[in-house]
Amino acid sequence: MAKPNLRIIPLGGCGEIGKNMTVIELGSDAIIIDTGVMFPANDMLGVDYIIPDFRYLLERDDLTIHGILYTHGHEDHTGAVAHVIEALRGVPIYATPLTAALLEVKLRGANLEQETTINVFEAGDVLHVGPFKVESFHQCHSIPDCVGFGINTPHGLIVHSGDYKFDNTPIDGKKPDYAKLAEFSRRGVLLLMGDSTNAEIPGWTPSEQVVTEAFDRVFREAKGRIIIATFASHISRIQQVANFAAKYGRKLAIAGHSMTENVKMARKMNLLQIDDDRLIDVQRISSVPPHEIVVMATGSQGEPSAVLGRLATGQHRHMDVWEGDTIVLSAHTIPGNEESVSRTINRLFQRGANVLYDPIAPVHVSGHARQEEMKLLMSLLSPKFFMPVHGELRHLKAHARLAQQMNIPEENIVVVENGVVVEVDRHSIRLGERVPGGYVFVDGSGVGDVGKTVMRDREILARDGFLMVVVNVDSQGRMLGEPEIISRGFIYLRNADELIEQVKNVVSDVLIQTRASRNGKRRERLQESISRTLYNETKRRPMVFTVINEH
Amino acid sequence: MAKPNLRIIPLGGCGEIGKNMTVIELGSDAIIIDTGVMFPANDMLGVDYIIPDFRYLLERDDLTIHGILYTHGHEDHTGAVAHVIEALRGVPIYATPLTAALLEVKLRGANLEQETTINVFEAGDVLHVGPFKVESFHQCHSIPDCVGFGINTPHGLIVHSGDYKFDNTPIDGKKPDYAKLAEFSRRGVLLLMGDSTNAEIPGWTPSEQVVTEAFDRVFREAKGRIIIATFASHISRIQQVANFAAKYGRKLAIAGHSMTENVKMARKMNLLQIDDDRLIDVQRISSVPPHEIVVMATGSQGEPSAVLGRLATGQHRHMDVWEGDTIVLSAHTIPGNEESVSRTINRLFQRGANVLYDPIAPVHVSGHARQEEMKLLMSLLSPKFFMPVHGELRHLKAHARLAQQMNIPEENIVVVENGVVVEVDRHSIRLGERVPGGYVFVDGSGVGDVGKTVMRDREILARDGFLMVVVNVDSQGRMLGEPEIISRGFIYLRNADELIEQVKNVVSDVLIQTRASRNGKRRERLQESISRTLYNETKRRPMVFTVINEH
Repeated sequence: MAKPNLRIIPLGGCGEIGKNMTVIELGSDAIIIDTGVMFPANDMLGVDYIIPDFRYLLERDDLTIHGILYTHGHEDHTGAVAHVIEALRGVPIYATPLTAALLEVKLRGANLEQETTINVFEAGDVLHVGPFKVESFHQCHSIPDCVGFGINTPHGLIVHSGDYKFDNTPIDGKKPDYAKLAEFSRRGVLLLMGDSTNAEIPGWTPSEQVVTEAFDRVFREAKGRIIIATFASHISRIQQVANFAAKYGRKLAIAGHSMTENVKMARKMNLLQIDDDRLIDVQRISSVPPHEIVVMATGSQGEPSAVLGRLATGQHRHMDVWEGDTIVLSAHTIPGNEESVSRTINRLFQRGANVLYDPIAPVHVSGHARQEEMKLLMSLLSPKFFMPVHGELRHLKAHARLAQQMNIPEENIVVVENGVVVEVDRHSIRLGERVPGGYVFVDGSGVGDVGKTVMRDREILARDGFLMVVVNVDSQGRMLGEPEIISRGFIYLRNADELIEQVKNVVSDVLIQTRASRNGKRRERLQESISRTLYNETKRRPMVFTVINEH
Repeated sequence: MAKPNLRIIPLGGCGEIGKNMTVIELGSDAIIIDTGVMFPANDMLGVDYIIPDFRYLLERDDLTIHGILYTHGHEDHTGAVAHVIEALRGVPIYATPLTAALLEVKLRGANLEQETTINVFEAGDVLHVGPFKVESFHQCHSIPDCVGFGINTPHGLIVHSGDYKFDNTPIDGKKPDYAKLAEFSRRGVLLLMGDSTNAEIPGWTPSEQVVTEAFDRVFREAKGRIIIATFASHISRIQQVANFAAKYGRKLAIAGHSMTENVKMARKMNLLQIDDDRLIDVQRISSVPPHEIVVMATGSQGEPSAVLGRLATGQHRHMDVWEGDTIVLSAHTIPGNEESVSRTINRLFQRGANVLYDPIAPVHVSGHARQEEMKLLMSLLSPKFFMPVHGELRHLKAHARLAQQMNIPEENIVVVENGVVVEVDRHSIRLGERVPGGYVFVDGSGVGDVGKTVMRDREILARDGFLMVVVNVDSQGRMLGEPEIISRGFIYLRNADELIEQVKNVVSDVLIQTRASRNGKRRERLQESISRTLYNETKRRPMVFTVINEH
């Protein structure tokens, strides 16, 4: 009997950093790995976040989706869970304890916790999901409870790396599962799907141990308060800081809603070990001398409304930056956030703090493998076929070059962007059909309703604003009274009397010239003439609108 | 007799990367060094560029400004020349040949070439500008004809580094002027003002020679066309490429208006050596086999309208990207441009090109000194006082830390932002008064007229757009006909019939409820009710306007 076709469909993460989501199909059976979100680029105006376009799954009503498997709890792997479960009600979830807890929060927030079952597993467990036997294995990353998957299919074994680095001295002591990788290799790996985030960076990502040493120095040398900003989900970084708080006799305060929630949950789950009397409420820190306090805070991306952003602009409710504070940014800057991070650093300096950040001090290391680790993974697994995932095209291409250096033949490597179906069997790997794989913008409560037209209008409004003229005419088409002018984002109207006067004259002239024309025509002529005047006077091109009211 | 006071006033470049401009005053005599522009951050919506706020100079009518001295021809040092000369007519300019030629183009473009005199000098020349004896000296950077200044004052010698790196194997063979620096040191340096751009980066910036080796490899290995993008002003990079074109028998085409103009000028001035028959018009490149062509192009910052941006989107008039093209991005990415550069790289990959860029290949090196070079400059000069310039606060602070490592006492170092007057004499350096030193936004033909209000409106419009309702009422305040609704950037109106219907109902309800109120009150109530409805339905907050026309 012929084996059912094996197809891999990246709906996210291939051709971008973020919103990771992959479908693996065996005939009419499928599983999904991860359902992430992505944060908008600076020119995606007004967009809150981006989710994968998973229309394909809705259109394939012959397909049975047996489960969604999660590699770890970061937003770019979990953030779209509510959107996906809302559309695919009843599909069960498989996740490790921390990931499961984070997913549950999201589902509860969307009132969807009844619409799925979360099956909690431990790294190393074997999952039977439809026809797929999936072997999970522990991976080191910057959040605990991170796994990769070995997915057994009739065509062979697929290994999905998840996000990973080879950290031989991790904070939680849980080393990479080399034994499992070696076992996969012995059994033969058909296809490796590997994280490409750092594929352009030579060498080996330093161990979290490096950060430990940098932190030890910070705690040893700081004379005043220490404030450390990182991602709210960076549980292992929070553990490191808690350990140093104990070592150096400082109280630990957690500032920021999302981080407070995560700490609460991680402590409950025993993923974070902090003594009760080590912790202090952020509102009470002024009761402790500065050299006995350390604060963990959100805002490492320069977000103006997070804790660090508020401290930088003096707008935090319970805290101010003091001369003598040591402030540490312990996080990678997500591309696109460079300007806001830099602005935050500069403002904290202005307030007299000593600010430490990479590359000034090694207070952060990446959670993703670099080139030598990628090569190690390929060496350990000796896959027949290779498909780089998790990266923009530039990163996927760089990862593919590495694979060639590892003697994987070019024809055994596929570099694809979202929506390209990859077909694989024992003999070959090839590109199949194309399904939708673009961006779905979430803006407020709207999902996918902000398209090119609205975005282009926002661009024009952002650049030059608008000007609107409302004018009343009598039944003979003669202007009645003064036109009303409303404008925003174009020019400061109070200082633009002369220009406003000119616009009014243009309106009056055009209305006289076009007395005989119909309303639509007059409106068009008005808009043209006003636009021309505004451009000539200011070299700007605001949107111009006119309303002619006939009385 | 008491010596006149020596004051240094950074109007640009201190607290930012860009728009460098410094005033040096001796009593009522002054000179200016550089008049640069800065490019707007992603959230400075609609701003074309930023110039220094030089109101201080206009307000000090007792001050005689004897000249503007330029270190080199880059935009962040020259770009505001027309704005400054327009305000300070008659003040003479001092510049090296290439810089002078670039300034002349700008002044001609603004019809201001009659309003100043450009005095051309060569590196090494001594300039007498008012009471200042200024000794220029050659510096290596990424544009030829770059200098620093030794400024003699009755209080001692000030050395201004300009932009520099210590490149011992520069492309044009012109090495750093170590002899002059040593001589300054022998005579004693009161104050060093040093470029801080790379103060966070350890080590030594590689020589341009590294790029030569990388390019040699590119030319040796490329089977098809080579397209190299860099800054239009990067004359030495263009020279390198021309040399390789000759070595490997390729014709050289220049694509992009500004680069074409610069090449023409630099060849005329003998700053660029390219044989006539090596060059080919970009419109004629299809007449040459792919492996015999190399194109130099603009667009290394991902600008959509420059050559590389057009190639990436398939919108160039004379060229397409072909499978087999090798495309090199040979330029540093200016902070804030990361996203557009990355997008360009990805799109070029999509079109089948092989794209090379830092860090994939060492096809670019910085033109600015790193930490070890900064320390070398301090070692060579042994200044008594130190003032880091050219950098955001984070870079100035990092540079100051280096100076302390070089045993310059903390009290001999001043870190200031634009507008802070620095007073210096033989005995001490200290902060004086504060003068305006902020941003002046240039938007279209408007200089400084886009302030906080307009910018905030643009932000709101960019995020959620606007919606306007124009409604007619009779003399009893009853609604006549249907309200007219105009909206942009908020929602795609054609798919929003239901929402529009809701808004119309709200309008009609509110007009009934407020029949007895005056027009202003009704308008306010309408706007509130409409805003609330829109937020409830979409979780967005567009600007809402209403016009009530009474008939």
